[in-house]
Amino acid sequence: MVEAFDAVQVIIAKRDGHVLSDEQIDWVVDAYTRGVVADEQMSSLCMAILQRGMTRAEIGRWTKAMIATGERLDYSKLDKPTVDKHSTGGVGDKITLPLSPLLAACGVAVPQLSGRGLGHTGGTLDKLESIPGWRASLSNEEMFAQLADVGAVICAAGSGLAPADKKLYALRDVTGTVEAIPLIASSIMSKKIAEGTEALVLDVKVGSGAFMKDLEQAHQLARTLVSIGVDAGVSTSAILTDMSTPLGRAVGNGLEVTESVEVLAGGGPADVVDLTIVFARELLARVGVTDVDPAEALKDGRAMDSWRRMIEAQGGDADAVMPDAPHVEEVRAERDGVITRLDALGVGIAAWRLGAGRARKEDPVEISSGAYLHKTLGDRVSKGDVILTLHTETEARMPRGIEALAEACDGEGAIEIADSGPGRGRVVLERVGTAT
Amino acid sequence: MVEAFDAVQVIIAKRDGHVLSDEQIDWVVDAYTRGVVADEQMSSLCMAILQRGMTRAEIGRWTKAMIATGERLDYSKLDKPTVDKHSTGGVGDKITLPLSPLLAACGVAVPQLSGRGLGHTGGTLDKLESIPGWRASLSNEEMFAQLADVGAVICAAGSGLAPADKKLYALRDVTGTVEAIPLIASSIMSKKIAEGTEALVLDVKVGSGAFMKDLEQAHQLARTLVSIGVDAGVSTSAILTDMSTPLGRAVGNGLEVTESVEVLAGGGPADVVDLTIVFARELLARVGVTDVDPAEALKDGRAMDSWRRMIEAQGGDADAVMPDAPHVEEVRAERDGVITRLDALGVGIAAWRLGAGRARKEDPVEISSGAYLHKTLGDRVSKGDVILTLHTETEARMPRGIEALAEACDGEGAIEIADSGPGRGRVVLERVGTAT
Repeated sequence: MVEAFDAVQVIIAKRDGHVLSDEQIDWVVDAYTRGVVADEQMSSLCMAILQRGMTRAEIGRWTKAMIATGERLDYSKLDKPTVDKHSTGGVGDKITLPLSPLLAACGVAVPQLSGRGLGHTGGTLDKLESIPGWRASLSNEEMFAQLADVGAVICAAGSGLAPADKKLYALRDVTGTVEAIPLIASSIMSKKIAEGTEALVLDVKVGSGAFMKDLEQAHQLARTLVSIGVDAGVSTSAILTDMSTPLGRAVGNGLEVTESVEVLAGGGPADVVDLTIVFARELLARVGVTDVDPAEALKDGRAMDSWRRMIEAQGGDADAVMPDAPHVEEVRAERDGVITRLDALGVGIAAWRLGAGRARKEDPVEISSGAYLHKTLGDRVSKGDVILTLHTETEARMPRGIEALAEACDGEGAIEIADSGPGRGRVVLERVGTAT
Repeated sequence: MVEAFDAVQVIIAKRDGHVLSDEQIDWVVDAYTRGVVADEQMSSLCMAILQRGMTRAEIGRWTKAMIATGERLDYSKLDKPTVDKHSTGGVGDKITLPLSPLLAACGVAVPQLSGRGLGHTGGTLDKLESIPGWRASLSNEEMFAQLADVGAVICAAGSGLAPADKKLYALRDVTGTVEAIPLIASSIMSKKIAEGTEALVLDVKVGSGAFMKDLEQAHQLARTLVSIGVDAGVSTSAILTDMSTPLGRAVGNGLEVTESVEVLAGGGPADVVDLTIVFARELLARVGVTDVDPAEALKDGRAMDSWRRMIEAQGGDADAVMPDAPHVEEVRAERDGVITRLDALGVGIAAWRLGAGRARKEDPVEISSGAYLHKTLGDRVSKGDVILTLHTETEARMPRGIEALAEACDGEGAIEIADSGPGRGRVVLERVGTAT
């Protein structure tokens, strides 16, 4: 086969700050997937993209080229509108768990293709796998049938979906090129567009526990994501939400399932409930469903019914109670005062080291390991009060979890108590996108 | 083995514009040579270096780290000072051929480790291999003995010298990262410092036929090269020389050997003779040899004697006459006037396509292929005069050589004739470095 371009040519064009042509982008993404462009060439190109950026048109084309390397799902035969949410990843972010069945209960279909956690942020599939019997892998036919029947499905993306992205993601992970906004955005959107959803809302996390540490970066990513979605004909918006402190009380796979079930039962932490409803309203409005109040569907048990049907359709035991961790350590207030810092990254890394997350893709995760916040930001405490508990299945991990809390925030520690403080700010920071 | 650093850490540091520590540089260069840092990681780092640059200290350390991956030659037991010249590569640049024996005739030793050509610039070893019997590979012991006896040796760098550079050079070639000045400079200097010369002069070519197209870039490279040499204790200077038109009349392996022998016989083109003497004077002054005039040594046959001994010591037939090419095509003046352009890159690419150069490292080169300039820049010509002849061993190559001349200078052609013109400018443009 005669190749249309030469990899070095394409690398040099981007390296020198030029805009890549549609043909160059189509070729390099496809040729990389075919193995004609070598890993060392693609990583060099990724670094050039990170340094030089890409135009909106380039990012859109790159996304399309990634989608074109695989199959694209089609739910047009479904008699319900399809909606989906994607989060850029945070600590304690279990919103997908209550949100998907809630949306199904409101009459729309949610074809949610999720991932596993890497690093300090958790993965939706890891959390759901805490439920005995639940399986993440469905065929396209099973997925379609479950959407038609239950209305919600959360499963692993099949290998046929944007294979270029899978290969590229693994490469970026080891070559210091994860943080390129064009590549982050096209990676997320290639999967979501290929997945075939009609409406999409992106939860762009901002703060220490998020990928984007500051609002400006998060804003840029949000705008890029929305523009790719809009250009591809998906009704897309983004909501910037705070990730300076964990979301809810529970951080860790089984712990987060329990908290999600609490929310579905009409209880649970206010921030999780509120954010779930914000996203539900945003998505329902995007597909014109205005006659249902998601807050009601959460309170009256309809969302819980959908949850049970969704879990059982994938082989899970909806009545299962999550196991307690065999090793629990209490972290107590060292003085009287108000909690002025409860750092998301510190807690996330602690949970990760305790066994809730994995260091390498092939590592298993522990069901009952993680952290539980008994107090949150702005709470008044007395010396000796339990602020949080650390949970692990592997006793030897406990010192590393404690250490992670102490080392957080450049050694200042994840927890700070002062005489007074402002309490927790808003969770929803900003909305990016066209009106619904 | 527990590694001191993580490749991604080092890549991210440079990517974000930080200065790498000595320890990071030592580790990454060594770990790459050992295969612990993967090609796709090093190419990403090279692209980050290209985009972000390196400080003088970083480049010096990188060079040292590359040297440390191999052996370092030592000529301190030799009773003569050692000197060497390195050219960044040009068209018709055969200066090393007459210069090395000339310096030997002046009483200094020249341990010249050379390379092969790639692309449109010729390689010294390729040229010398036109001589029947001559061999480029010597052991360190043979090299030392020849230096002690003849005083000049031109041979291939052994595999023990800066192996990191060999691996890195091949990687940069396919990943669009050749053009990073810190990497160009450390590549050149690691070999020259490891080679063990006391004094070094760098011929930094500027112009269409050179790697550096403009004076500013060339200046930056020259300053970087000199600073690395000085920091490593080598008495180093750089001379910027013009490469907008070929050097001398002959371009091609055997053709350049013949022209070099003419220079050693006291004749040859003025620009080649002048430049040879400029470099000889510069190097002799750097090692304090002031009682010999290289111009005299060239005229009176002493340099030719050294040449014959040098060629014969490496098995070559010093009396061999270079073969004529079986296929020769004349390129004639299309009008009366003055030659105002005779483009180095155009002629270089023509010679390359005719068989004088190679496209891939493993390709052979042809001895008698190339170009010979019957007229040069500033010469007055009449319509029909032969300006240059194209030579090839492979008839099928001839159209590609002619085409290369026509396509040169964005399709304007390598040769331009006008009513009047300024003639050839100075060959020596500037000198960079401390006084001798």
